Order: sequence, then C-alpha cells, then structure tokens
Amino acid sequence: MGINLTNFLSSKSKNKRMGEFQDLDHIDGVAISTVSANLYNDPRDDLVMFYFREGANFASLYTQSKIISENIKWNLNQKVKKIVSLIVNTRNANCFTGKQGYKSLEKIAELTSEKLSQKQKEDDQHPKKIKSKEIIFGCTGTIGEVFPEEKILNKISDLINNIKYTQNKYIWMKAALGIMTTDTQPKMAMEECSIGNASIKIYGIAKGSGMIYPNMGTTLGYIFTDADLSNEILKKLLKKNIDNTFNAISCDGDTSTNDMISIFSTGKARHSKINNITDTKIKDFDEALNKVLLNLAKRVVADGEGASKFITVNVKNSKLEKESKNIAFSIANSPLVKTAIAGEDPNWGRIIMAIGKSGATINLNKLSIKFGDLNVVYKGRLYHNYNEDEVSDYMKNPNIEITVDVASGTKNFTVYTMDLTQKYIQINADYRS
Amino acid sequence: MGINLTNFLSSKSKNKRMGEFQDLDHIDGVAISTVSANLYNDPRDDLVMFYFREGANFASLYTQSKIISENIKWNLNQKVKKIVSLIVNTRNANCFTGKQGYKSLEKIAELTSEKLSQKQKEDDQHPKKIKSKEIIFGCTGTIGEVFPEEKILNKISDLINNIKYTQNKYIWMKAALGIMTTDTQPKMAMEECSIGNASIKIYGIAKGSGMIYPNMGTTLGYIFTDADLSNEILKKLLKKNIDNTFNAISCDGDTSTNDMISIFSTGKARHSKINNITDTKIKDFDEALNKVLLNLAKRVVADGEGASKFITVNVKNSKLEKESKNIAFSIANSPLVKTAIAGEDPNWGRIIMAIGKSGATINLNKLSIKFGDLNVVYKGRLYHNYNEDEVSDYMKNPNIEITVDVASGTKNFTVYTMDLTQKYIQINADYRS
Repeated sequence: MGINLTNFLSSKSKNKRMGEFQDLDHIDGVAISTVSANLYNDPRDDLVMFYFREGANFASLYTQSKIISENIKWNLNQKVKKIVSLIVNTRNANCFTGKQGYKSLEKIAELTSEKLSQKQKEDDQHPKKIKSKEIIFGCTGTIGEVFPEEKILNKISDLINNIKYTQNKYIWMKAALGIMTTDTQPKMAMEECSIGNASIKIYGIAKGSGMIYPNMGTTLGYIFTDADLSNEILKKLLKKNIDNTFNAISCDGDTSTNDMISIFSTGKARHSKINNITDTKIKDFDEALNKVLLNLAKRVVADGEGASKFITVNVKNSKLEKESKNIAFSIANSPLVKTAIAGEDPNWGRIIMAIGKSGATINLNKLSIKFGDLNVVYKGRLYHNYNEDEVSDYMKNPNIEITVDVASGTKNFTVYTMDLTQKYIQINADYRS
Repeated sequence: MGINLTNFLSSKSKNKRMGEFQDLDHIDGVAISTVSANLYNDPRDDLVMFYFREGANFASLYTQSKIISENIKWNLNQKVKKIVSLIVNTRNANCFTGKQGYKSLEKIAELTSEKLSQKQKEDDQHPKKIKSKEIIFGCTGTIGEVFPEEKILNKISDLINNIKYTQNKYIWMKAALGIMTTDTQPKMAMEECSIGNASIKIYGIAKGSGMIYPNMGTTLGYIFTDADLSNEILKKLLKKNIDNTFNAISCDGDTSTNDMISIFSTGKARHSKINNITDTKIKDFDEALNKVLLNLAKRVVADGEGASKFITVNVKNSKLEKESKNIAFSIANSPLVKTAIAGEDPNWGRIIMAIGKSGATINLNKLSIKFGDLNVVYKGRLYHNYNEDEVSDYMKNPNIEITVDVASGTKNFTVYTMDLTQKYIQINADYRS
C-alpha cells in the first residue's frame, strides 16, 4: 500500500515531523470545501473547491501532450489577473469530451460565480461580483466519457455552503483525499520560510500514481502561499523549480492529457515587494518552494501504481545536464530495470543496457555504478571487491539508490521512480471495471 | 506460452503450411551443428555453428545501443569478403566483459579456424586454409558475467564433428532452439522465390522475447539464401527490408547491447548477376526476404515475454511516415495501453493519451480509431453506434488490431507488439535466479 516515506523525505525545515503527513493548518486567504457529487457512485468526496475570498495571484504549468483536456483549454482561455476559485473533480478527465465538455465547464463556472457573488454579499464587508472567468478547473479520471455536468452542477450549492474560512490539517487532508483517483494515499507537504522579515507559508497537495512522466506539470499539484508575489514572479519560480522535482519523476513513462501544477498566492503576508527572482530576499522562499514540490513529487512516485520500492537514480558528471537526464530517465523508464528491482535482483547488466540505449556517448573505461554505497562497476570493470550477496541484501531495502558516474564532466541529474510489479498490471488491467 | 500464430501469419508463398513451423530443408552451402557447452548447467544445446564450406557473402545490421557487446566489436573488426562460420552462444551476452571477453573470441576463432582447416583437408577436394577473421559471433544472455571461454573452447571439436552437410527441418529446429534464451518457442521462417529463372530459397531463424525495441537489428535473426548476391547488394536489401519488419516491433521498449540481424548468401544458385537492387530480377527475392523477416519479427513479438495477446497497431494517413511511426510506437510502448489490452478492456482513452504524448500535431476533429473492424472514435467523436459490449467481446480475441486514422496525409506505418501481463513481471523479476 505505497511506501513508507519516513526514510527518504528530508528537510531542513524547522517544522513538524517530515516523512509522515505534515500538519498543514491555516493559510490566510485560502478557504477549502469538499463534497461528494457521487461521481464514483460512492459516498467518497470527489469535488474539491479552493476559494480565494479576495482573489489570488497564480501561475500554472500544463501537460506537454498534444491532446489536452477541456479544463486545460478553459484555463488557458481565461485571461485574468486573479483567480477566485479552483474546482477539482475526479473520476472524469473531461478529455475528448468535445464541445459538451467545454460547455459544461462554462455552465459550472457561471453557476459558481453567481453563488460565490451571493456569498460575498452575505459574508464580506466589500463584496465583489465574481466572474466566471475567475474560476479555473482541475479534472482527472477516465478519458472520453461524457462529462457529468448535472451531477456537478447539483452540488455547487453544497460545495459553497461547506466553505470553511479557517483551515486545519483535517480539511487539507480531505482536500488531498478528494482529488485522488487510483492513489492509495493523500499527498500533502508544507514549508515555512521568510521573505525579508515576514514569515511565509507554502502548502501543497498533489495526486497521481499512473500516467506519470515529466512533460511539465505531472499529475495534479496545487501550491498555496500567503506570500505577495506577482503572476510573473510565480510563473518564473514555478518553471525554475519544476525541473528537478515534478519533471524528475517517472512512474510508467506515460503522460496524461490533464497534467497541471499551479501555485496561488493570496498576498496576505506583509513583505517588501519582489520585482525579480534574482532578488536575494526571495532565495529562502525559492528553496522552500523547491522542497514542497520535491516532497510532493516523491510522494507521487512512492505511491506509484503497484510500487513496492522507491528508486532514486543519480547520474553524475556528464558534460551536459541533458546527458545525465537522458541516462537517468532511460534507467528509470526501463521495464527490465524496474522488474529486476521488484524482484530484488541487483541486475546491473540491465543498467548497462539502459545506459547504452539512452544514446549518450560515454567512455566505458570511466563508468562506475553504485547500488546504495556499494560499488558494483568501478571504472569500467566489475568492482574487485564486488560481493553479490552483499548487494542482494541491499536490494531488500524499500528505498533503492542507483548512482551512475560517467566521469566526463560536472553535470548531474537525479530522477525518482518506482519498481514495476505484478500489482501495477493488476491495477491497470482492471482500472475501468 | 506464446500465442498461436496460425491466424495472423499469412503469405502468398506456395510453400507449405504457414503459421505453424515451416519445413525448412536444405540450402546448398550451409551446414549446421549444435552442441551443449553446459552454459546453463543443463544438457540443452547452447552453442550453434553455421558453416559455409565455400564461404558466404554476408551483411549484418547491429544494435544502435551506445554500449555494444564484445562479439559485435569483433564482427565489426573483421574486414573480409566472405564469412566461413557464424558461431552463436546463449546464456552469456559477452557484454561489459572487457578485454577478456574480446580475447576469448579471438581464441575461439583461432581454434575454430584451425579445426575447420583440418576438416577441409579431410572432406574437400580443394581445401582452403580458414582464417580466424572469417568467423563471426552472435552472443545473447546475461550482461557482465565472465565469458565462459573454456567451456566453449572445450566444445569446438564436438561442434565441428557434428557438422551435417545436408540439412533438414530437425536440424534447423535444433539451431533455432539452440539460440533461445527466455523464448518459449523456436522461430523459423522460409520463402521460395525466383531470380530470373533460378529458384531461390530464403531461410531464417531468430530468437528474442525481451529487450525488444527497434534500433536496427533487434534480437538475433539469421537469414540464409543460396542466391548469389554481393555483400553490397545484401546490405542494401537488408537495410531496406528491416524498417517495416524487425524495426517495426516492440515488446518492452528496451534495446539490447547485442542485437544482430545477418544475411548470408552461399551463391550456389545459378542466376544472372545482380548489380543493383533496382534490377527488376531481384524484385521477387526482395519481397520474399521481406516476408521472411516479417514472419520472424512477428514470431518474436508473439513470443514476447509473458505475452497473452498479439497486437497490431496501424497508423494511417499522416503527412509523414515518421509521424505515423511515432504515434504507432507511442501506442505500442505505452504500459497503460498494454495492460488494458491484457485486461481485455477496450480502454480507448489510453489510446488517445498515447497519441497525445507522441508529440504529433493532429486535428482531433478528423481522428478515427478502430478496434478490429469496429469503429470506436469516428472523426473526433465517440462513434454514434459505439457499443462497448461488442468491443469488449472483440478484446477477448488473441489478436488485437488497433487502427488509428489521422486523416491528414497518405503515409502509414504498422507496428507489432504484445500486451503487458503479470507473467512479464514474473519472468523479469526472476530472470537471473
């Protein structure tokens, strides 16, 4: 049932326990509500609303697939400075649903904006009229089924009535649970950091355990902060920090039509204005954002469909980072490497195979490979003290680290993946039934 | 246990039953011998010799992996016009075995050439002195283990003593069995054709059921003919015919360090000289060679590790063949598509996903998808008469055909693959143990 994360998640944050779920609490300006629209014919929550009472700056990265879902089309069409709500549904990807799928979102956004405008009148001193274009969507689930417009429309009132202005860890947990599909565990992460003298929170939730391969935002990941940052700064920070986090994971090499990673900043924290991401005052935030994204990305891999082992593939000392990345993904995506690890077999010959097929030109005489701290290949030869029993013992570990040193430059890349098990086949052969 | 081929292998050849094994008999100038060198600690044959008593013209295509086995290095280094023998061993890939692996081949080639020279003196009217460079090797098995030089050297005499100058189907079968690793079935194919008035045979054997992805010669495939063709013509014919045969199959997207496809022509048939592959007299041979290669390639896929279904992916009407090919391989290599088919689930949403991630720019409104003859998506929409029960029934078939029509040009490509089953994981998690 997924992998225990206690061992591999680390953070210099002074906050809370890492590994197991962190205690996300309140972020000023973010309200959350969840409800069951019965999309699974099951009472589980399947509809989640994030409501930014005074609006939020935001940035999103989407799938690089050439076929994108209707909600991504919708999101890309809304040219607004602030977002008022993000609504996420599971069970139906709203992809290949054509005009009907898009029109359904239009209707849902209209109804939601109307109801939220009413709520503003009731709750707020300076109520604003909410527009439908201030609402964006995340969708995940099966491709090509008719989008359940009615079921969702019928639950918008409940969703809005359920809104809590003060969050706690249980509400975040419900949100993280409410966006799950085949995930076995909710995925949450948090960091606290500073911008100048202001203390800043960065919270995030994510979902995803199949169709995971990095072409920008992988699966769904939503980051929330009380920092006061412009859309442009948010976009730059997100792009910069996605490369070695959500773009460094792979479960099965498949890419979804619905991938979406967003960051929302409510601006409730008081700090001096940040005009540029090179501003030293943003450094701590930048690092903390990377930690939250990496923490979530690792949780996605650890919960990868059928995973029994979490695998870290480090490729070191290439001339170009691209070369390290290609080799790392060639290893991480190889079914033969992944099944060998599932079988706890230190089959380093398959690592050699995967390095070879990556297309990277390497000097075999310099190549070294380690499993954990154990030398396996050293400068192009089987390590003189190689002890297969010792390495076999290491393979029983739930966290496997493979380090490939090509010794031809200084560029490194690390990729996270999981093993390929019979359980993966089981889950995916049965998914729709 | 592989898939019954009777249904999907077809040929216009007048020869014998297709589908099940064909009756390969004698090709003038080819002699075969097999022996057990106990490489598996098991009495099975694991060493196979093809002996061309008067030499053979030849051409080879090798893996595109950047890491190649020592036998491929050896083969590439021998600059000769004719080959006298091909020796194939299983169990050990002779890859990442360094200088020792290469030197072992040198010694084996030396001993073999010496013994074959003796045999020529005994058997032949005009004996020739065989040189070690006239011997090439095929190796397949585990990467990185010490090459079993002694075991093989000890069996060279037996191998040569066993040589039969007249072949029959049992000897071919023994050869095909002797080169197997995780294969469950030997792979043989044949065609008869004409060059001018001369009747010509083309026989082939192959092995391979994992690490199969097309980067030139996939797995091991050896073609033998009595035609009289130059090395240059053979190379051109092999290159031309590999694209839609061995380069159009994929089992798991992994590529071996040892892939090798060769053709040997003994020149025993009497026909007028062929100077160019555009010569119309070579057309029948060209087509027959394609059939033999395709027949073998399909057998490799049908015996793919753990395969329960044979899958044909046709992509039609792209602007460029490359686009059709990319889409076809994106579908054929998708673990999610392959597991859905294993589960007999007509999950066309995953086909959409795979088309999207292929990177091809397509007009969704023109896209059509069929499973067998059943319309699923028609011009960008779920087919109006789509009947999931009917398509589900179709999925129970052992041969699944997926046809994607992108309706933007005239270029087609077909890829052959198999489903991804629990059995695949079992085989590959246990391979070395």
